[in-house]
Amino acid sequence: MVGVLKRLVVGRPLRSAHLGETLLPKWLALPIFCSDPISSVAYATEQIVLVLAAGGLAALTLTPWVGLAVALVLAVVVASYRQTCYAYPNGGGAFAVSKENLGETAALIAASALLVDYVMTVAVSVVSGVVAITSAFRSLAPHAVLISVAFVTVLVLGNLRGTKESGKLFAVPTYAFVGLTFLMFAVAIVKDLTVGLPPAETANIPLEQTVHVGGVFTLILLLRAFASGCTALTGVEAISNGVPAFRKPKSRNAAMTLVMMGGLAISMFGGITLLALVLNAHANPDGNPSVISQIAASVFGGSSALFFLYQAATAGILILAANTAFNGFPVLASILAHNRYLPRQLHNRGDRLVFSNGVLLLAGFAAALIVGFDANIDKLIQLYIIGVFTSFTLSQFGMVRHWSSVLASGAEGLSRGRIRRSQAVNLLGATTTAVVLVIVFATKITHGAWLAVAAMIVAFFLMRGINRYYARVEERIRPDDTPTTLPSRVRGVVLVSRMNKPALRALAFARSTRPDGLEAMTLAVDEDETRELLEEWRRREIPVPLKVLEAPYRDAVRPLLDYVIKLRSTAPRTVVAVYIPEYVTTRWWQNLLHNQTALRFKARLLFVPGVVVVNVPYQLDVADQGWLGDQPSLAAAATAPAAGAGEPA
Amino acid sequence: MVGVLKRLVVGRPLRSAHLGETLLPKWLALPIFCSDPISSVAYATEQIVLVLAAGGLAALTLTPWVGLAVALVLAVVVASYRQTCYAYPNGGGAFAVSKENLGETAALIAASALLVDYVMTVAVSVVSGVVAITSAFRSLAPHAVLISVAFVTVLVLGNLRGTKESGKLFAVPTYAFVGLTFLMFAVAIVKDLTVGLPPAETANIPLEQTVHVGGVFTLILLLRAFASGCTALTGVEAISNGVPAFRKPKSRNAAMTLVMMGGLAISMFGGITLLALVLNAHANPDGNPSVISQIAASVFGGSSALFFLYQAATAGILILAANTAFNGFPVLASILAHNRYLPRQLHNRGDRLVFSNGVLLLAGFAAALIVGFDANIDKLIQLYIIGVFTSFTLSQFGMVRHWSSVLASGAEGLSRGRIRRSQAVNLLGATTTAVVLVIVFATKITHGAWLAVAAMIVAFFLMRGINRYYARVEERIRPDDTPTTLPSRVRGVVLVSRMNKPALRALAFARSTRPDGLEAMTLAVDEDETRELLEEWRRREIPVPLKVLEAPYRDAVRPLLDYVIKLRSTAPRTVVAVYIPEYVTTRWWQNLLHNQTALRFKARLLFVPGVVVVNVPYQLDVADQGWLGDQPSLAAAATAPAAGAGEPA
Repeated sequence: MVGVLKRLVVGRPLRSAHLGETLLPKWLALPIFCSDPISSVAYATEQIVLVLAAGGLAALTLTPWVGLAVALVLAVVVASYRQTCYAYPNGGGAFAVSKENLGETAALIAASALLVDYVMTVAVSVVSGVVAITSAFRSLAPHAVLISVAFVTVLVLGNLRGTKESGKLFAVPTYAFVGLTFLMFAVAIVKDLTVGLPPAETANIPLEQTVHVGGVFTLILLLRAFASGCTALTGVEAISNGVPAFRKPKSRNAAMTLVMMGGLAISMFGGITLLALVLNAHANPDGNPSVISQIAASVFGGSSALFFLYQAATAGILILAANTAFNGFPVLASILAHNRYLPRQLHNRGDRLVFSNGVLLLAGFAAALIVGFDANIDKLIQLYIIGVFTSFTLSQFGMVRHWSSVLASGAEGLSRGRIRRSQAVNLLGATTTAVVLVIVFATKITHGAWLAVAAMIVAFFLMRGINRYYARVEERIRPDDTPTTLPSRVRGVVLVSRMNKPALRALAFARSTRPDGLEAMTLAVDEDETRELLEEWRRREIPVPLKVLEAPYRDAVRPLLDYVIKLRSTAPRTVVAVYIPEYVTTRWWQNLLHNQTALRFKARLLFVPGVVVVNVPYQLDVADQGWLGDQPSLAAAATAPAAGAGEPA
Repeated sequence: MVGVLKRLVVGRPLRSAHLGETLLPKWLALPIFCSDPISSVAYATEQIVLVLAAGGLAALTLTPWVGLAVALVLAVVVASYRQTCYAYPNGGGAFAVSKENLGETAALIAASALLVDYVMTVAVSVVSGVVAITSAFRSLAPHAVLISVAFVTVLVLGNLRGTKESGKLFAVPTYAFVGLTFLMFAVAIVKDLTVGLPPAETANIPLEQTVHVGGVFTLILLLRAFASGCTALTGVEAISNGVPAFRKPKSRNAAMTLVMMGGLAISMFGGITLLALVLNAHANPDGNPSVISQIAASVFGGSSALFFLYQAATAGILILAANTAFNGFPVLASILAHNRYLPRQLHNRGDRLVFSNGVLLLAGFAAALIVGFDANIDKLIQLYIIGVFTSFTLSQFGMVRHWSSVLASGAEGLSRGRIRRSQAVNLLGATTTAVVLVIVFATKITHGAWLAVAAMIVAFFLMRGINRYYARVEERIRPDDTPTTLPSRVRGVVLVSRMNKPALRALAFARSTRPDGLEAMTLAVDEDETRELLEEWRRREIPVPLKVLEAPYRDAVRPLLDYVIKLRSTAPRTVVAVYIPEYVTTRWWQNLLHNQTALRFKARLLFVPGVVVVNVPYQLDVADQGWLGDQPSLAAAATAPAAGAGEPA
């Protein structure tokens, strides 16, 4: 029944052979890889305005300068990642680049940062998308948590089915968002020049200055606003990961798409920031209605069809942005699992060729964050950028090292100059992102970013621990080159509680394996039952000795275990094979009705070295037991050797 | 660690031999067996007053008549159970008596009633005991649920340790309650004759008539009050269960104790009911303060030491009454389990010789009821008496049948007369309790008793179903008298995923059992790994063929299973032995780090008839694997026959 349900939700299993690459043209690659960075403009401006507003109206006039700084950093990072596209045509994620150029520790830090980053992308993007919806339909605002978790669930289901084929569907909200944003700019300019623009909904709410300004305080405020605005950069690295998915020439196409994305993101971010200033849009502490929705309402008219269309497109691209994390996280987790930094289960593709466990893990963390932070975008976003800039910095420094080693390996002439230029670009990128990282760390650590840092630290040590554990196990079980040896002696012990078919079956199988010694063993719990069993044993003339173990404390497992351990200790090179007749029931409640002593015994036996456990199952609900059930083959009895008759090795 | 904790709480395991009977003198038997019926007087009067008050002041004056009727029924039931003490010196519980005389169905009904009854005894007694406490310390009233559950927990812990030895401790609250009650009567009489008695705390609260009175309505009200008052009879049967625990002459001593108990209960119940009338004590709908505590407050003075002492004694005897259910339920469950009406686990004695599972089950149900009914005594009590009178009626009718069969088996002379007299007493008892049962059913079924009836019905069908299931299994696995046969052929299959020590070990053991055919099997999930394995296989010259199975859907379990099923189907009389190398880890988190494919495969294999599963464990944390670990015994390799070399049977 679980199987049927899974089939309905997830779909039919796909063959591994289906796993072919679908190569993407640029117009399709843009929405697939860039929904995350482009959608960031939906909340980046708001973060700047929110911080600056605390400094009063005067501080708010500094918005364009902060915006400009963010745009500059964005341009530098785009330029820097262009180099990665050329240098790593097989995909240059922060983990891979760091691992190759900076070593294991840096790679693991990058991986930790990326894992945390993916989780944050899902949480922030989904919550932001829901804000776009609740900004249009205010009455939904109290249900933001529920709606957000519902979206995460939809993303999980979609990704468990595998969304590779639906690339074209992705294009719609991305291009709609981009197109409508530029349409909004055009309408704003036209209206401003003709009928004039109405101020934003929150324009007349007086600002309350809550922080010091002047001198160093203004600087701190500006740095905080800048750090918040840098959320516009999240997801920029996606294209450099995805170079292999582009059509040829892969690197060139990827680099061009990256530049396109950079251009779009900077112009949209710039336009929205300017409009926010012109319309005097303030940020609400609970994020609703959002600054971008206030701008759209002013420009298009708050009840116009275009306004609602714009909100839909905003929500759409943000949910898609979350979806990119659902592609990225499981793939990264799988790579890490393959490199033995995460449990192997994360390396298995599910029925639909998706790394299902990674999808579920990501969704679980993101949903926990959404619920824990009450779907409050302004609080969630504090956790976001630290991971992003950690991986940026490591990745770019890795690139600097990469070019050095390329130079060292001896390129010549013109190309040496180009390499030096690339290296310079990456060094600029690395330095810039490192500075931003320091600013972000300093201004955000007390505002919630400590949680992201803590998560990264935990992830780091967890992965290192897992890696060391796997290495230790590997070392332990690696076969040496001595020839394979068979056990010198095998002692068989058959567990019998009452005289019945399962017990006889186990006994017969044990005899057929011809151990060097065989005995049956029962436990004296109830005197009458034991006597009955002994009599029946004699009556049937079973050619195996039956040993009765005392169980003074009624616990069956301990005496059995002690007996086996004693057997082993008297002959350390002997393997003890314990044969356990086992009832197999088909319904869960049937298990409740059978004493599970044999199972508990089995579980404990596995910890005794030199013991092999043989389950001889008896299917209670199957009529034909195949052998020794209902049609015993008498011929076999005559030729089989008696117990203990096998020649000793 | 769990083991240490259990040892601390439960104590050291006791040997089965410790299970000797401690024979009880009458003065000790009375508190042990009669705390339940004697403590009932703490709430029985209140139930009558509560019902009658709904009919107004006039209806309340009928209290003595209702009380008299209850007392009469109590006397009849005591007389009737006296006969049981003589007829069943080995203990005449309702289940045993019904089973012997009325057949399986009646016995199961009685058992269902008793099981429900025991749960109700715990819930009602504990909640009543807590009411005695909150009546003295009013501020504790809001925490009644918590305190009640805490008491249940204490009872569980006490009973898991085994409370047999603490019989004398039981005597204190019982005799204190009895003594103080009679002291209260004496003081009341003296005060009434001298200084006069102050009215009860609730005397001046005007009564609101909420039901019709007059004619048939009055009758209905009286019947309801009578049905409620019959809670005074709960637990009367305990002595007839416990006859074997008395000193000789067992039956006579038990019967005398029963009569003593009856006398005490009737006089105490009568006295309290009269005092309630005289002092005009009304019942509070939430049960707090209780009627009996109001009486004690009036007589002793609400802040006197005697009042607090009396409340303590009341709480004490009520908690003890709950404890009797902790003796009764597990024993009954164990008897039912022995008769295959309940899962066998309930028949096992725990470390301290107590039927631990029964104790836990009872506590679980009782705690659920207490929480579900918010520790409200007046609501809980509605569920109580139906089970009690069901078992009374069946037990007494069983006695009537018993005497008939005794007469039929041919007693003579004087003794025939005595038997006829006993039978008449039991017939009176049976008829009376049957009439009461009808009244209780009719007046209470809509007031909550339906839940108790539903629970009884569920228990009945559950037990019948379990019994039939066990019978079917028994029939299925009973060995016939054909001689034991060994399997005609054994095919060995060793599961190998990578070349490592655990795999080599499983292979070596499989070879040592000399199957008629042996092969290794691996799954082609990752091409590189498979190629590597095949090469290593060749290089090591392992004399067992390695078969590579395709896994187009990456799911390892299905292809393996299909392969084994196919093996079986080509040779139906062949046993397929599947050897599974198994990593054994000592810490739970280590399991997360290993693919559990082998385990899932094993679980599915058990359902295939004719398949035997052999676990060859490899302890990752144990240095000495005993064999094929670190000191291979080279000698063995030389003499062991190659795979497939065993002679066919």
